[in-house]
Amino acid sequence: MTDDFPHDPPSAFSDHLGYRLTGWSENYGRYELDLKAFHANRQGLPHGGIHATLLDSAMGICGCWTGSEAVRQMTLTLSLDVQYLGRPAGTRLIAEARKTGGGRSIFFAEGDVHDDTGLLIAKGTGVFRYRSRPAE
Amino acid sequence: MTDDFPHDPPSAFSDHLGYRLTGWSENYGRYELDLKAFHANRQGLPHGGIHATLLDSAMGICGCWTGSEAVRQMTLTLSLDVQYLGRPAGTRLIAEARKTGGGRSIFFAEGDVHDDTGLLIAKGTGVFRYRSRPAE
Amino acid sequence: MTDDFPHDPPSAFSDHLGYRLTGWSENYGRYELDLKAFHANRQGLPHGGIHATLLDSAMGICGCWTGSEAVRQMTLTLSLDVQYLGRPAGTRLIAEARKTGGGRSIFFAEGDVHDDTGLLIAKGTGVFRYRSRPAE
Amino acid sequence: MTDDFPHDPPSAFSDHLGYRLTGWSENYGRYELDLKAFHANRQGLPHGGIHATLLDSAMGICGCWTGSEAVRQMTLTLSLDVQYLGRPAGTRLIAEARKTGGGRSIFFAEGDVHDDTGLLIAKGTGVFRYRSRPAE
Repeated sequence: MTDDFPHDPPSAFSDHLGYRLTGWSENYGRYELDLKAFHANRQGLPHGGIHATLLDSAMGICGCWTGSEAVRQMTLTLSLDVQYLGRPAGTRLIAEARKTGGGRSIFFAEGDVHDDTGLLIAKGTGVFRYRSRPAE
Repeated sequence: MTDDFPHDPPSAFSDHLGYRLTGWSENYGRYELDLKAFHANRQGLPHGGIHATLLDSAMGICGCWTGSEAVRQMTLTLSLDVQYLGRPAGTRLIAEARKTGGGRSIFFAEGDVHDDTGLLIAKGTGVFRYRSRPAE
Repeated sequence: MTDDFPHDPPSAFSDHLGYRLTGWSENYGRYELDLKAFHANRQGLPHGGIHATLLDSAMGICGCWTGSEAVRQMTLTLSLDVQYLGRPAGTRLIAEARKTGGGRSIFFAEGDVHDDTGLLIAKGTGVFRYRSRPAE
Repeated sequence: MTDDFPHDPPSAFSDHLGYRLTGWSENYGRYELDLKAFHANRQGLPHGGIHATLLDSAMGICGCWTGSEAVRQMTLTLSLDVQYLGRPAGTRLIAEARKTGGGRSIFFAEGDVHDDTGLLIAKGTGVFRYRSRPAE
């Protein structure tokens, strides 16, 4: 494996939508998606559900880093808020998220979606609940 | 056409995710999705982005009924809030939304996602902006 | 006591802002506030923080009914979302909330703010966490 | 006037709650509040409506800087989302906000509430609508 960050097996949904984990460390996560024709909403723009999906994934994973790829922490989204700030000029969406607080059972996160030209496309916040801690 | 409600051409994204408009009238919209293996997140549950997609679509379309299928009103999502209340026990997700307020340029909506067993799965609210009014 | 609903001692903040509990039962709460000059924001309208305060209070209390005034359940707000739909035409704000889901540690709620003429002023949703269960 | 930032006349509500503008420039606003006994909720902590009030005020004002104190831009909050991350250890709440996007009619903002010991207490996002542009 040549990438310089830990991996998490892609989900069925990430494969179907075409996004992939491109960065992961303690309290940080990043997913990227190459925009395709099938991402278009009824007016030809990327559907708002895509930004929500990327932010939910990036915010969720940012709180689940355990220090080992083999020990997978799971989480449930309690609430997700997304703001839609702009339309992409590029061909790729990059969602980055950071854990902002919480404790043993709950965590908070925030994230941004930029495109590959650096444009800010969306912002999000979320509240997440940890599922039972993984056995180590 | 045998269905008893107005139609809107499916988007590329709705085809890709497998959801379809099943109800539409003034200030009301409904989309349904049959759950498939490709909807699964990293722990095998429907990805939170799916609830967000269905709610964004249903809340958006509920404010865009013009009285005629031929006159298509478009809208942009400004913000979307989703609460995740439960996991589906059934095999289909049903998102219903209603317009709750607004004026000529902005509208507000709220929506629910149930499954086909009647279980409440998610709730959402959104703020939307109308794009230029359609020519009639 | 002549009122026909359970009571909860008013908080210092509710006294300071002038709102009071006017309805409380399992999964339901209502607070009311008579609009005063000191509620005005920089443009003379009720400050958005007032709607947020009423919704936070009503959604919080709706999940804390224990069946007895003497057994006080406490809760912490994790997240609060408010939509501002209109301006009051009357002189009183009435916030009503209902619990929509959750379990032993977390609950979800939604609420509305109307004025005394029946106008819808605001809507809100929230995620709350129970503090340790009260001794009985 | 000895302060080094522009001023905006305090609202009746800011006087009543005891918070004041302590920073304002293009796309940035800051309000501070000294915690008092009357800010307490039913469990003796600062009421969540206070964080919401400070964030609503700071996010609103951050988009209203016109370059001149004499030209007052007004705005209406469309939606406000608040996350509650911690409890203050200090005696003062400091809310800072920044405009994150938008155009001529709508703007987006985000903000944080810290206490005077540096602890992160709350985060918020908002969508705002400009009222008619001020005459100059």
